Order: sequence, then C-alpha cells, then structure tokens
Amino acid sequence: MTNIVVAGFTANVLLAVGASPAMVENEAESAAFAAAADALLVNLGTLSAERDRASRAAAAAARKAGTPWVLDPVAVGPLAHRTRLAGDLVAERPTVVRGNASEVLALAGASAGGRGVDSTDVPAAAAGAAGDLARRTGAVVAVSGAVDHLTDGSVVLEVRTGTPLLTRVTGVGCALGALVAACCAVEDSPLVAAAAATAVLTVAGQVAASGAPGPGTFAVRLLDALAAVDERALHEHLDAR
Amino acid sequence: MTNIVVAGFTANVLLAVGASPAMVENEAESAAFAAAADALLVNLGTLSAERDRASRAAAAAARKAGTPWVLDPVAVGPLAHRTRLAGDLVAERPTVVRGNASEVLALAGASAGGRGVDSTDVPAAAAGAAGDLARRTGAVVAVSGAVDHLTDGSVVLEVRTGTPLLTRVTGVGCALGALVAACCAVEDSPLVAAAAATAVLTVAGQVAASGAPGPGTFAVRLLDALAAVDERALHEHLDAR
Amino acid sequence: MTNIVVAGFTANVLLAVGASPAMVENEAESAAFAAAADALLVNLGTLSAERDRASRAAAAAARKAGTPWVLDPVAVGPLAHRTRLAGDLVAERPTVVRGNASEVLALAGASAGGRGVDSTDVPAAAAGAAGDLARRTGAVVAVSGAVDHLTDGSVVLEVRTGTPLLTRVTGVGCALGALVAACCAVEDSPLVAAAAATAVLTVAGQVAASGAPGPGTFAVRLLDALAAVDERALHEHLDAR
Repeated sequence: MTNIVVAGFTANVLLAVGASPAMVENEAESAAFAAAADALLVNLGTLSAERDRASRAAAAAARKAGTPWVLDPVAVGPLAHRTRLAGDLVAERPTVVRGNASEVLALAGASAGGRGVDSTDVPAAAAGAAGDLARRTGAVVAVSGAVDHLTDGSVVLEVRTGTPLLTRVTGVGCALGALVAACCAVEDSPLVAAAAATAVLTVAGQVAASGAPGPGTFAVRLLDALAAVDERALHEHLDAR
Repeated sequence: MTNIVVAGFTANVLLAVGASPAMVENEAESAAFAAAADALLVNLGTLSAERDRASRAAAAAARKAGTPWVLDPVAVGPLAHRTRLAGDLVAERPTVVRGNASEVLALAGASAGGRGVDSTDVPAAAAGAAGDLARRTGAVVAVSGAVDHLTDGSVVLEVRTGTPLLTRVTGVGCALGALVAACCAVEDSPLVAAAAATAVLTVAGQVAASGAPGPGTFAVRLLDALAAVDERALHEHLDAR
Repeated sequence: MTNIVVAGFTANVLLAVGASPAMVENEAESAAFAAAADALLVNLGTLSAERDRASRAAAAAARKAGTPWVLDPVAVGPLAHRTRLAGDLVAERPTVVRGNASEVLALAGASAGGRGVDSTDVPAAAAGAAGDLARRTGAVVAVSGAVDHLTDGSVVLEVRTGTPLLTRVTGVGCALGALVAACCAVEDSPLVAAAAATAVLTVAGQVAASGAPGPGTFAVRLLDALAAVDERALHEHLDAR
C-alpha cells in the first residue's frame, strides 16, 4: 500500500529483485489481501480518507495473521492528521518502521518532524529516538540517510554504502520500505531483512551511479543494477566501506 | 481508467504509438467521457470506492454510446469484492476482455484465480474458459502469457512473439489492455484489434530486449521500439515464429 | 497536488532542478500544507471527490497565507464538472494559470475547450483570451504549445525553444506547471518565473532530443538535461531562436 507518486517505481524495484508486488488500497479488500500476502507495506504518502481506513484494516489483519509488515511514516510530524494515523498504526505492531530521521524523531515523540517529505535531521541524530521507539514497540527501526541507522532496540547496524544520486530520484526511500517488506517475507530476522534490503538498494545505487550523466539515467540503471546485484557485488562494495 | 501503479507507463505506451490517452476516474465525469471517447479501458487495479462507481458509469455509457471498451479484470478471483464488480461489468458487454490465465479462469467461473496480480496458470490452460466466456458475453477474450491466446468464441489466434523481460516491468499487461482499446478505435474487428495490439507490443518487446542490460533499460527501449515499429518489423518478427 | 498519471515524473522533474516536491491530496491536510509550502500546484487531472475538496481547501489556504500558487486546468472545457471547479479556483486568485490553448480558451469562457487533455488550438489563437483572463483575475497566464505564449495582461512573452518530442511523453505540460510553481517560490515576478520555467524545460528538451532514438530515451535524458542545464546553455539555445 503506497502512494501515487512512487507506485510504479516501487513495483519495478520489487520486480527487479524477483519479488511479486500487488497493490490494493481500498477498505473492502485490504484486510483479506494483507492476511494472504507474504509481507505488507503501509506507506502514508498521498493519503486519502479511503487509504486511511484501508491502511488500518490491513495493519490489523497483518498483525492477526502474522504477516510481517513495514510502516513507512511519510511526512509524519508536520502533518497532524497522519501523525495520529501513524501513532494508531504503531499500535498494530509493525515488524519494521522505516523512515528518515525527522519522521522517526516525530514518531518517537521526540520532535515535530521535518518539512514535508524531506528530513531536516541526519540518522545519527535520531539514534536515541530510534532505540526508544524500537524498545517501546518491538519493531526494528530503520532510519534512512547518507549513513543508514538500523536497530532493534539492542543491536545497532549502520549501512554506509550509497550515493547522493539516490536522493535525486523520487521514491527511493519509499521503494526501500517495500524492499524491506519483501526481505521480511524470506528472512526471519527483521533486523537482518532491513539491513539486507538497505545494502542491496544502496550497493545497486553505487553501481548505477558510476558514469551516470544525471538522475534520469541513474534511475534506469538502478533497476538494471538491482536485477544484477549478487553476493559478490554486495561483499565488494560493503567491504570497501 | 486504470490504476495508480501503471497510469504513467500506460500513457507513455499510448503516446508512443500515436494514440491520445486521457484518464478520468471520478463518477461525475466518467460517463460523459466514455461516451465521447473513441475507446475506453476499464482496468480494475488499485480499485477505490469512487473508481468502482466511476467504472460502472463509464461501462454503461460506453455500451449505450457504442464506444468500444476493454475490461482488464486485474486480480479477479482471489479478491471477492472486485470479482463481483467484474461480473457486473461483463454484463455491460465489453468489446474485449484482456487478462492473464488465472483472471480469465476466475471471470469464467472456472477457478478461484491466481495470487494477486500474477497468474498461476498458462494461457493454454484457460483456452476452454476463454472460449466459453467469449460465447457467453460476445466479447473477444485475450489471455496474456508467454504465448498469447485470443478468441471470439469461434476463431482462435495465438501470438508467440515476446520476451521474458516483459514480465519484469510493471504495467506491461495493463498497457496491453490500453493498446487493445486504442486499436479498437481504428479497427472494426475486435479480434484483429486485440491481435494487432498484442503483436505490436510483443514485437517491440523483442526489439527492446536485444542487448538490454536489465529491466530498467528494457522499459525505456520498449517505448522507443513502440514508436518505431512498422509493418516490416512486425512481419519479420511474426514470420520468424 | 497533481494527478496519478504524472505524479512520479513531476516529482523527478522537480528533484532534477533542485526543488523539494511533496504531494498531499486529502482534505484534512491540504490547507495546512499549502500554507506552509513555498509554492503550490493545483492540477485538475484524474480528479476525485476528495481531491476536489482538497484542492479548494489548499487554494483558499494559499491565498490567505500568501503562498504563490499555480492552477493547471487539465481538460477544462469538455468536462463540465471540472470546468465549474476551475472557475471556483480562479476566484482564489492563482498566481499563474498554465494550460494549453483549448484549456485557456475554455477557462476564459471563449470556447468549449479541446478534446480531453489535448489542445485543438494553438497558443496564438488563445492570445486574446489569455490577456482577458490575466486582466480579469490578476494571474499570469501561460499558454503552452509549439510556441509558448505568456502574459500578465499587459506584457506578452513568447518562448520558442522546444521539440515535438515533448508532446510524446506524458506529463510534460503538467510538470511545467509544477516547475512554474517552483520558480514562483524563488522569483517575485510570476511572469519571469513562468518564463524561466518554460525556458528551462524547453531548452532541456532540445538538449535531450539530440540523438534520442525515441520517446522513452528522450524522457530519461530530459531529466538528465534538467539537472545539468545552466545559464550558458539557456542563453545559447534561447539566443538561437
């Protein structure tokens, strides 16, 4: 369940890595679909009244059915309406919360959040809030940024791969949330799943950035690189950091 | 009328072949627009309550006005709500029904359908159901897959061109439905229109796949190939199968 | 606030030039967001009942807060429902109205408009209506086409850069509306802002068109060119016309 800006790109990212995306956003179908799916993403971008209700129904159904699910609290903080929704959704015990530093700070109650969809904070500044949120909710919290910060409230992981071009293409953060959900479908540890998704996307980003003349070509090559990335490429880039 | 995942790609596919896409998804406008359009697509992806009502109004208006229209019953079968909607829409006599094998089996009442948007059956397995559905409704039924199967209930056509990369890009099936509608606007025989659209898209796919490093580049080249494909290219690739 | 067809492309265009897009389309959040934003776009494509209400709330809030805002009256004219909405929104005093000739003629009350989203008129034919609309509303009116026509009701500017490929990619006109809004956030004169946005997009289009094998590659290169375009490139191409 994602927003109108990134839906196509998100589906292509998931298809590139071999996952099977399907998007449902109405109240009549979301609960049944969340219960049947291998994993669920609830992304709060371009919220509508119907998506609000459908998200609540899906999260509740996922919790009941044991479907792993990821909450992406887009723009939580400055927008009071979705901040309340995000708070309610956290009560449905997401497996992973993925956001930028401002969103995680706001969700943890530690700040009023960023400006729209962009973070005004770096992940390190949200480390304390991420740990608190993880311990309070039982979710793994993944804070995206130049250095990604991931924690289950006890262990902390950092992912240092990536490229600034990832911030020049819309939907990369949102697609990461979807990729985390896909990894949760095949990996029991949510922390490992979130770290794997982050590593795959940022390493593919580095591969795609090499020689890219601009953000348009970069986005296209990112999908190519996601489809091609393998264990050797991951080790090569991760070890270099 | 299509879904949030594929709307942009679908419009670009239609523009590439010289058609004039316009998308309307609200109840207040869909009937008037369907009556005025040269052809209509009703795709059931990312259904909302308003799109549900708008689809019904558009299909009824298309039938009344004689506008050729295509039904794409996305994910019909496992999702009861849209399966009922698809049944109601079939009563408005679509010119063409285009779906994957699982969707066509479900729409024909022959199975509970696939899993989400992906088919768990091959077109050949839906041949009987496609013929029955065509004879019962008067629609041409186009079943997409590695070998596309098309029938008006009497004649059966198969299109064997294509490439597996077409399944690694979101929205290709949905764009095919739109392309079938565009062909129905300029060709009186719905069976010929559906076959032509399928041939153009799959041949362009073969052209685009040649040397493509991955699904990102492939999707871009697919649009280039659609804009360039001509009678000679069609014959060359179709005759080779 | 834009439509499901072009949302992703529009965000990528804005990111390419260094702007910070954020999209909100529900009634509960649009007013607060419009008041806090540096600029607002209201695009009437793929209208829904909720987007209708959210657009009205956002435009009113933008007017009250002094946020510059751009109205893109997509398909106004043939569709009575959105023609009424566009009329109501004009009363909220948009900073700029950007549309094709048919849309501007319809909004000015001078014709019934084009067919769907495509213009059936050229910008020069809408010159009188654009001037009238500008004088009546206080908005700068930007009429897009092969030669773009912009006016504040007194001064008239023409932008002659561009390429026919810009009409083979969905959302270029819609993205131009967003780019005008972004320029209004950093330039006090709406006429200069609209002309700058038009020049940047059409010059980038010329750069991208050079050697592009088709519309798919062109759209990708357009984003690359938007990220790279500088004062020298602008002068070079604008002076050549």
